[in-house]
Formats: sequence, structure tokens, C-alpha cells
Amino acid sequence: MSEGRTVFELAQRVGGRIIGDDTVEVRSVAALETATVADISYVADRKLFEAARESQAGCLIVPEEFVAEDSSNAKTLLVVAKPKLAFALVGAILHPPQKREPLIHETAVIAKTADVALTAYIGPHVSIGDYARVGVNSRIEAGVVIGANASVGDDCVLHPTAVLYDGVTLGDRVILHAGACIGADGFGYVRDDMGYHKFPQIGTVVIADDVEIGAHTCVDRAALGETRIGRGTKLDNQVHVGHNCSIGERVVIAAQTGISGSVTIEDDCVIGGQVGFGDHILVKSGAVIGSKAGVLPGKIVRPGTWWGIPIQPLEEYKRLNAHFTRLPSMHDELKELRKRLEELEKRLD
Amino acid sequence: MSEGRTVFELAQRVGGRIIGDDTVEVRSVAALETATVADISYVADRKLFEAARESQAGCLIVPEEFVAEDSSNAKTLLVVAKPKLAFALVGAILHPPQKREPLIHETAVIAKTADVALTAYIGPHVSIGDYARVGVNSRIEAGVVIGANASVGDDCVLHPTAVLYDGVTLGDRVILHAGACIGADGFGYVRDDMGYHKFPQIGTVVIADDVEIGAHTCVDRAALGETRIGRGTKLDNQVHVGHNCSIGERVVIAAQTGISGSVTIEDDCVIGGQVGFGDHILVKSGAVIGSKAGVLPGKIVRPGTWWGIPIQPLEEYKRLNAHFTRLPSMHDELKELRKRLEELEKRLD
Amino acid sequence: MSEGRTVFELAQRVGGRIIGDDTVEVRSVAALETATVADISYVADRKLFEAARESQAGCLIVPEEFVAEDSSNAKTLLVVAKPKLAFALVGAILHPPQKREPLIHETAVIAKTADVALTAYIGPHVSIGDYARVGVNSRIEAGVVIGANASVGDDCVLHPTAVLYDGVTLGDRVILHAGACIGADGFGYVRDDMGYHKFPQIGTVVIADDVEIGAHTCVDRAALGETRIGRGTKLDNQVHVGHNCSIGERVVIAAQTGISGSVTIEDDCVIGGQVGFGDHILVKSGAVIGSKAGVLPGKIVRPGTWWGIPIQPLEEYKRLNAHFTRLPSMHDELKELRKRLEELEKRLD
Repeated sequence: MSEGRTVFELAQRVGGRIIGDDTVEVRSVAALETATVADISYVADRKLFEAARESQAGCLIVPEEFVAEDSSNAKTLLVVAKPKLAFALVGAILHPPQKREPLIHETAVIAKTADVALTAYIGPHVSIGDYARVGVNSRIEAGVVIGANASVGDDCVLHPTAVLYDGVTLGDRVILHAGACIGADGFGYVRDDMGYHKFPQIGTVVIADDVEIGAHTCVDRAALGETRIGRGTKLDNQVHVGHNCSIGERVVIAAQTGISGSVTIEDDCVIGGQVGFGDHILVKSGAVIGSKAGVLPGKIVRPGTWWGIPIQPLEEYKRLNAHFTRLPSMHDELKELRKRLEELEKRLD
Repeated sequence: MSEGRTVFELAQRVGGRIIGDDTVEVRSVAALETATVADISYVADRKLFEAARESQAGCLIVPEEFVAEDSSNAKTLLVVAKPKLAFALVGAILHPPQKREPLIHETAVIAKTADVALTAYIGPHVSIGDYARVGVNSRIEAGVVIGANASVGDDCVLHPTAVLYDGVTLGDRVILHAGACIGADGFGYVRDDMGYHKFPQIGTVVIADDVEIGAHTCVDRAALGETRIGRGTKLDNQVHVGHNCSIGERVVIAAQTGISGSVTIEDDCVIGGQVGFGDHILVKSGAVIGSKAGVLPGKIVRPGTWWGIPIQPLEEYKRLNAHFTRLPSMHDELKELRKRLEELEKRLD
Repeated sequence: MSEGRTVFELAQRVGGRIIGDDTVEVRSVAALETATVADISYVADRKLFEAARESQAGCLIVPEEFVAEDSSNAKTLLVVAKPKLAFALVGAILHPPQKREPLIHETAVIAKTADVALTAYIGPHVSIGDYARVGVNSRIEAGVVIGANASVGDDCVLHPTAVLYDGVTLGDRVILHAGACIGADGFGYVRDDMGYHKFPQIGTVVIADDVEIGAHTCVDRAALGETRIGRGTKLDNQVHVGHNCSIGERVVIAAQTGISGSVTIEDDCVIGGQVGFGDHILVKSGAVIGSKAGVLPGKIVRPGTWWGIPIQPLEEYKRLNAHFTRLPSMHDELKELRKRLEELEKRLD
């Protein structure tokens, strides 16, 4: 539970007009069903207006249209254009990321040549290699391993057991969840009669500011050059990003999606879960790819919404699937036509 | 190798009648092909009766019908209704989960305010946060991280490098395999012109008694409220359970299945591997969903067996696929009918 | 950056003839676009000949046909039959795997009964259990956990947080990337009215020489017996190998593929990413299975190239998919034929 804020203070930070008592103090964001008088909740969806009216929340963040619906004047309303967005911003105020006092835990092992900011938190059993860097206010939780020459920017949070291989770079405000693995060798071999020889995996990974990476997600180092994740991009859990990929800014990739080597995904794309990308694909800015889709190697994916294996425009996908479910009736119809045709042939003979 | 037990002792514990020498002592369960005289094996499948007869096992767990087949009287038989089940129960007797002497390893870092049972085992390099709790006889292996206010019940086993984020709760007899990650932030953002703002992820995870969770499986915390895993449920490796999901009791989910936010899976469902669930799905008790299936967001899945992308009843799926493979011949037939029709038209003109 | 080598030295090691100055010294492999005079690069693909000619590389590894194309004599050429292979071999010479001085870090916890070679490197926060073994020159990085009776061969590299459960065996020159998990319990239960009883998971895992295993890949122990990975096999990130699988030699498996229990994959198979295998499948030597394919339980997969869910020969898959996209036109044609048939019928009546 956080320290309380008045609705007046919150409105100053996130905008919107207040209806009712602006001195009401709230301590937490909450869902409509469980909200108490010390909570602030939100309603964006008309279907939830009824639940909102009955909610116990001390304050509701609502769209303009709710005000007209609700004549009870029973609770304080914060009226905004985008209630869910305002709720997220209020959440960030009431529940700021946990701060840790600066500390280097006595069990942490830090190379003498490493450069760790005085304001950083380095938790138990952390290892930091030679010439590695950890920026101001960054929080490195228990069991994290930071390789030699790796660099962590300012205000980052590395959750327990995240691993940075040697030489990789994180920008500022990067969040890595537990077990995230940045910089493992790419999967590249050259085959001869003897078996597989490792292709050099001597590149690195560069992750820009404000990126969040889910638990157990892996971003492999480039064979040669850099694997890149752009500013503000968010990866869910258990995503795999292969060597030499270049992911743009503000890209969202849902859980368990796998991206082969040398794929470029431009800014502002949205990728569903369990999608598979072959290598050397270019996804143009603004493309949306549905969950479980499969994209063939070398493909250029233009803006628009894509679906299926292999991907097709969503409308085309829907049309083909409608036809697919009609297959049995097509089959029956074909049989019927054949019979009628044979009858005609007989009559003509 | 465990301490030996006589077949008599085992029959008392798992039921069944003994044919032959009930003082035979066995020390281990084993497969038919590798069993020695000190092993007990089982046969459930008629196809394996021959292998069973030739096995070296000191005792065989068999169904009634095997007794009629086998007139050799060569070895001790334990005759039961469900041989595989009896074998599993015998296995649990002969190979009980490894016990560790109570210990707090000198390299473990345990917050002063944490409540660790005197009979617990806390291995090397474990971290336990403020106000966390570990119940009696629980075994916390090397490198595990237990966050502040997290709670581990009695008789649990947390394998190496498992991570509990702050505030999550495990019941009794829960097993987490290596790298299992409970309580990472859910994947929720609100977009505006600037990019993505994190939706509050301040809920928690509650895992009930007798749950087993595979290696590298991730169960995310709720945005608001609780993500729940019910009693006796088993998750395989590399499963992803999104924020606010509610998984019932005795549910089985195979490897690499991904479940988006706010999905409910009721009791006694069986879910294959690599299945993908969109958000806000309700799977009714007793449903079975085949491997690699895809379930669209918002779907209600009724009891029965489901298959495909998007899911269909198994029978329907099979029927459509049969038609699908017939497509080339349908195409040929269509061509042929067109030709014959054109001939008729010519003759009539 | 490594120590330099003359092209003459390199040619002696990897073969090929030199055109130009064989005393040129190179220090690193590099891509054509970024290569400097101290780098050696390669060109195998005719489309890149132009880029190769303009490259700044101090030496180019090229196929015979490039020599005819390039009359500039501007740089040293190493002419070989297989440029990419030669480049990989040169990469291994210029960038040998990092060596660590022998060390047992003071924070490592090693059982008194463990057998660790004097030349091994044991990093910070490593745990090694009773009777475990680590061979000569092996490198065990920070936070790795090696269970009791587990065995690591010579010249292995275990990257941070990799976990070996009790009793598993690695051959020589095995590489495990971060978080790789070898020997977790297989996913096997027997159901009765009460719920699920664990089937015994008391077997082990044996991994042969020269195997490389990607980050967060899981190889489960056998229920009874052994799960096996053959010599020279390479697994990408986030692969799941179930209990009792037997993977042959020189098999390549791309990221996120999941393999159920008791699957056999023979030597020299190539498996794409996100493939799913049901249990008890036999994949014959030399089979190639495309990404995202699904193989039904019990299937025998013969040599050849396979694709789709369920798998079909690639040619058949392509043919069916071509027909699939033609479904709407088939539907239209069927409608048209019906109309024309009806007209004929009217005319005849």
C-alpha cells in the first residue's frame, strides 16, 4: 500500500476535470469489483458502467459519457478522454517501482575494474565481471550475472537470475524480468562431412532505453555486428530473438514468439504470441501479426494485419477459412451436380 | 537405490493379491527390458505380455488377464486392477522424494524478518526476502530466490534457480522445477502517442497444494487481484500463464503452452503442448484441447475434445482435414464436370 | 580483438590458395559491410560479389568464380571450395573460446566428495554436489548448479545459471548456455479418482561429446532409463526434450521446438523451430522437418522433407496449399456450373 494522494493532486498530474470532492484521498488502484473507499478505479467500457456505479471505489476515472449516465453524485469522478491510460498513469504515481537503498551486498562478487554507480543496488549473490558498468539508481537483484564489459544504464531493474553475457549493452530504464538472457551465442553452424562447425558468434546485443523484457526471454548476440532492440519496445515472457535481428522502437511482442536470425521488425509493429519468423524477414513499420502466425524466410511484410501460416492479410485469411469450413458441403454439391449431369447425359443419349 | 521392501509390504500399501512368493524383496522400480531380480516392473498393455514373461524382474505388477496368460509360475505377481497406477504408487514408496537434513547453508542470505521453519533445508546461495515464509520440511535448493512477503508452504521442493517474486504464495507439497518463475509482471500496457505506459501489475499469484510446475515455466502476477493455480494441477516445462488467469484443480498442461491474460480453465481439463490461448477465454470443466491448438480470445470452450486453429470439435476437425486432403481430386472433378457440361451445351445448341 | 595471424598461417590451417600478399595480417572475422583492413571476411553468394569488391577487408575468403570476376588485384584473396566453412574455421582460430585461468572461486560451494579437475574454472556462487565430477579445462560460470553424482566432461563450458540435476552426465566439449536445464523430472502422471500421481522419474540424462545446448533449453530425465543426446548435436534456445527421448548424432533442432516423451530422432536430422512432436515418434536418419510442423504421436517419419500440421511431404504440402488458396474460385465455379446445369435442365424439360 502506497502513501495517499488526493484526487486533486492526481488530476494535476494526469489531466482531466473533477466532479465531486477533490480532497478525497486514495492509496491504491484497484479493479471495480474489489475497490474500497481508499482505492481509485476506472471504467472505459459501457458494459461496465453498471458495475462502476455499484463500486465502492473512493474515486472513479471515467469518460465523459459516464457523467451523463450517472446522476447519483455519490462519488468523486475524474473525467478524462482515455480512462485506461489515465488509470495506468495514476497507477505509476501510486505504485512507483520499488526503490532499494543503495547497497552492494556483501555476498556480491564485483570485479575490481567494474564501474558501479554509488546509488545502485547490488543484491545477494550477484556477479559483475571486469570492466562492466552499472548506472545510477539501477537495481540488480539476487543472483543476476553481468558479464565482462557489459553495460547497464541508469534506473534499470534486473530481476533475479537475469543474465547478461559479456559485452552487451542496456540503455536507461530497461527492465529485465527473471531469467532473461541477453547475449547468448546465436544458432549458426556450417556443416561439412564431419558435422557442424560453429559460425563465429562474436557480435553483441544493444538494447535501447525504456525496453522491458519478460521472464526467460532470450536475445542472442549477433554473429558479427549487433542484435538491436529499439527504444520503448516490450517483449513478453519466453520470446526468442535470434542473432542479428533488429527490432525497432515501440514494438510489442507477445509471449513465446520466436524470431530467427537477421529479421528486421520496424517501429510500432504489434506481434502476437507464438508467432514464428523465418530468417531475413523485413516487417514494415505498423504491421500487425496475429498470434500463432508463421512468416516464411525472406518475406517482406507490409503494413496491415496479417494472420495464418503462412501469413495472409486478415481479410483473406478469414475468407479462406470460411470456405474451408464449407468444404464438406462443396463436396456434397459436387456429387449432386455429377449425378444431375449424368442424368442429362442419359436423357440426351 | 532405495531400501528394500517385500512384495507383501507393497501389496498392503497399494492393494492387489499376490501370486507366488510374497517375501521377495525389491529395491527399485524398473522398465521391463532393464529390470533385474531386485526390481519390480509392471505390464498393462497386452502387447507387452511377451516382454513381461521374459523380463528378469523380481516381481511384476499385472492385470488379472495376465495371470491367465502366464502359466509359468516363474515369478511373483502382484495382481491389481490398474497396474500403471499401482506401479506409480510403488515407485513413490521405493523412491520417496529426496530428504535433506534441516540446514540453513552458510552462504544463504535470509532476511531477519523472514520466518523459516526449523525443519526446512535452505541450500547454498539462496536469498529469502523480508517477511517471507518457508514451511516445515520444505527444501529450497541452490540459487533459489524468494522475494519479500512471499510464502512457501510445508513439504515443498523448490529446485535450483526457481524464483518467487515478492508477495506470491505457494501451498503445501508444491514442486517448482529449475528456473520456474512465479510472479513476474503481467504483460499489460496502454498506448498513447508517446509509446507504451505500463498498466499497473500490482496483483499477486496464489498456487494451491500439490501443484507441480515444470522447468522455466512462468506464472505472471495479476495486474490487480490474483493469478491462481488450483490444487493438484500439473504444468510441464516452459508453459506461460498470463496475468489474472485462473487455472482450476487437477488440470494438466503440457510443455510450451501459452495462456494470455484473464483466461479461466476449470477443473479436470487436459491441455496439450504448444497450445495458444487468447485472452478472456473460459474453458469449461472436463474439456480436452489437443496439442498446437489455438483458441481465439473470448471463446467459451465446452466439455469435449477440441483440436485445430481455431479449435473445432475433434470429429469436425478430422472431417475437415479429410476433405482438405481431397482438394486436388475435387479440383480435377470440377474440371471434368465443366468439360462434360460444355459438351452437353454444344449438343443442345 | 585477438592476436593477429597472417593469411599464410590461416591458409595452412584451413586450406585454399592465396592470391596476393600472403603476409597480410588479420585480427578478426567481420561482415563485408563493416570489415576493416585488419579483418578477414568472406563471400559465397554471387549477389554479394559487388559488396565484396567494395569491402575494406584486409583479406577475402572467396570461391574460385570470384577470382575470374575480380580483376582489381586490390586485396589478398584466400580461394577455397567452401568459403563459409573456411570462414567459420578461421573464426575459430582468430576467436578461440575464452579461456579462464584455473580457479575455484571463494564463493563457490563444492562438496568435499566432488571431483573437480585442477585445471577447471569454477566461478562465483557455483554449487557442486556430492560425488559430482568436473573434467579438465572445463569452465563453470557464475551461478551454475551441478547436482550430486552429476558428471561434466573435459573442456566443457557451462554458462551462468545452467542447472544439472543429480546424476546427469555430460561428455567432453559440451556447451550449455545460460539457464539450460538438464535432468528435471519428466512430465508423467497416472490419474485416479483422487487426481494425478507422479509416475516414477528416476532415470537420467546422458549428453554426448560436442553437443551445444541453447539458453533455457530443457532436457528432462527419463522416467526409467536414459534420455540421450548424441554426439555433435546442436539444440537452439528454449527447446524442450521430454523424458526418454533419444536424439542421435549431428542433429540440429531450432528454437522453441517441443518433443514429447519417448521420441527417437536418428542421426543427421534437421528440425526447424516451433515444431511439436507427440510421444513415441521415430524420425529416421536424414529427415528434415520444417518450422512449426506438428507430428502426431506414434508416427514414423521417413527420410525426406516434411512440412505442416500434421506433417506431409513438402511437395504434397505445397500442392494442397495451392489448392487451398484456390478455394474461393472453386466455390464460384461450382456455383456457375450449377446455374448452367439448371439452364440445361430447363431447356430439356
